[in-house]
Amino acid sequence: MSATPTIAAVDWGTTRLRVWLLDAKGAVLDERRSDEGLLTAQHKGFATVLDRQLQDMGAAKDLPAIVCGMAGARQGWVEAPYVDVPSSLGDILGAAVPVSGAGRDIRIVPGLAQRDRRAPDVMRGEETQLAGIAALIGAGSHLVCMPGTHCKWVTAAGGAIQGFGTWPTGEMFSVLAQHSILRHSIGDKPAKVSPDSKVFRDWCGEALSDGDIGARLFGIRAAGLLSGLGQEDAAAALSGLLIGAEVASAVRRFGRRETPVVLVVSGALGGLYAEAMRLAGIAVTIADADEAVLAGLVAAARRNGMLAEGVAE
Amino acid sequence: MSATPTIAAVDWGTTRLRVWLLDAKGAVLDERRSDEGLLTAQHKGFATVLDRQLQDMGAAKDLPAIVCGMAGARQGWVEAPYVDVPSSLGDILGAAVPVSGAGRDIRIVPGLAQRDRRAPDVMRGEETQLAGIAALIGAGSHLVCMPGTHCKWVTAAGGAIQGFGTWPTGEMFSVLAQHSILRHSIGDKPAKVSPDSKVFRDWCGEALSDGDIGARLFGIRAAGLLSGLGQEDAAAALSGLLIGAEVASAVRRFGRRETPVVLVVSGALGGLYAEAMRLAGIAVTIADADEAVLAGLVAAARRNGMLAEGVAE
Repeated sequence: MSATPTIAAVDWGTTRLRVWLLDAKGAVLDERRSDEGLLTAQHKGFATVLDRQLQDMGAAKDLPAIVCGMAGARQGWVEAPYVDVPSSLGDILGAAVPVSGAGRDIRIVPGLAQRDRRAPDVMRGEETQLAGIAALIGAGSHLVCMPGTHCKWVTAAGGAIQGFGTWPTGEMFSVLAQHSILRHSIGDKPAKVSPDSKVFRDWCGEALSDGDIGARLFGIRAAGLLSGLGQEDAAAALSGLLIGAEVASAVRRFGRRETPVVLVVSGALGGLYAEAMRLAGIAVTIADADEAVLAGLVAAARRNGMLAEGVAE
Repeated sequence: MSATPTIAAVDWGTTRLRVWLLDAKGAVLDERRSDEGLLTAQHKGFATVLDRQLQDMGAAKDLPAIVCGMAGARQGWVEAPYVDVPSSLGDILGAAVPVSGAGRDIRIVPGLAQRDRRAPDVMRGEETQLAGIAALIGAGSHLVCMPGTHCKWVTAAGGAIQGFGTWPTGEMFSVLAQHSILRHSIGDKPAKVSPDSKVFRDWCGEALSDGDIGARLFGIRAAGLLSGLGQEDAAAALSGLLIGAEVASAVRRFGRRETPVVLVVSGALGGLYAEAMRLAGIAVTIADADEAVLAGLVAAARRNGMLAEGVAE
């Protein structure tokens, strides 16, 4: 480590933990990833896990930390109560909750709640990614798509988060591939799906036409019995079907925008969503999810006086 | 047993087996249910399981048997190749496949295949129920709904099966309740859902409006976090959501008919589907699924010369 860190930035998910050490300008000095997510930390203790990580990185015992994600859940470290939408990005970050008695200054960014009887929803962690792409969504009206286990679609206008919805597409894929009759079609270890797969495109296109997965799920099984659809193609069909239905459903709910959809994503999943958007005739602007969460944590640290204001990056 | 049986009728499902002894007129003399379905029979041997059941019922060693369901699957006893739709009920029953070397005359009713590239589908067992409700669907154009683990919707016209689709709604409920994030909302043992539940009706109505489960699945979890939706209501919400989406999806695919939808169902599930249809403004004629399969087996025995022709009940 070449310079002394000013603050630690922490993204505490359900199954993984990421820690960055930042200098006074918010630049990264060091970075660690571990699998000590919420589930592990509930067992070992949040303070113990974070202290150990920071100690291993050579950080001072009183180094402040800005945290987002599941550490702020009710079953997390300290509950950071949901901020209701609509809310500005600044107000969301400003509502960070301090952790007392930790021996260092720690603040946890709150999640968002949509208290709409017909469309109740919550998020934790994505609000920080949204703050990290403020440059993209800070002006005008935007639709943001944030793929993952529970994909979030978010509407933003004038730098405020207006509303959002959660499509549990990643979880549906995993649960159906492992536990439904489709496990016979897909096999024990689902094949990696490529956006270049014709089967992915065909099934995605079908689902895009009406947003319906209904009778098509079992169609994957039937296609195996009737026309020999193989395991790799069955995985591609399921992925295409679920992502296509999600995009159609989200567009039906939020409408099409004049501005491109901001696709916040990293890794292989990004390619699949980008292809689905292309098939749907939707223009996208791609933002990297890892960079977004880090930029959001820097913005949160600044908003809470833990880092001096400055030009991001 | 008061009279000597003429034939055994057998419904061999994936997880259960039902056997009836019938007299020469097709009337029931005795009935048994067991859990020796396909999965058990693959292990113990189909002939062994059936011989034991019939012996326990006091039947002769050479009593003929008419069989429907998974015994005719590729991984079953003897494959009864799918009959392609469209096909008349008579032709379907007439394609029953004999089992050789079993020491008794056994015929297995084939399943149906829909070899449509955009909507591939298969059924095994429901075709026999359809034959059992020939009096309801033998003339005119009809839409039939057959709820279960894999709910089948079938179009029939002039006594022929035109096409069908499978909505795996029962399996979706079970898999999502047990293996998705909704297990936290629903608990280890999902509560029995009543069609009188306001929550069932509300969520069913929402899904009926557009057929979309998309963001609403996670909404059940969010409603638990934000407004204290309890476990019983969470199960009702999931059930209403899935059944409502199914009905909307099936109606979108097959259109509304002038005749009532024939709802072939037994037990508690029938009440939930009947309520969903009511909410959708769809008239129904209810047929009992157990009676339908038995009547279909009797019709199959007659069509194959195993029982004398006669007036069905």
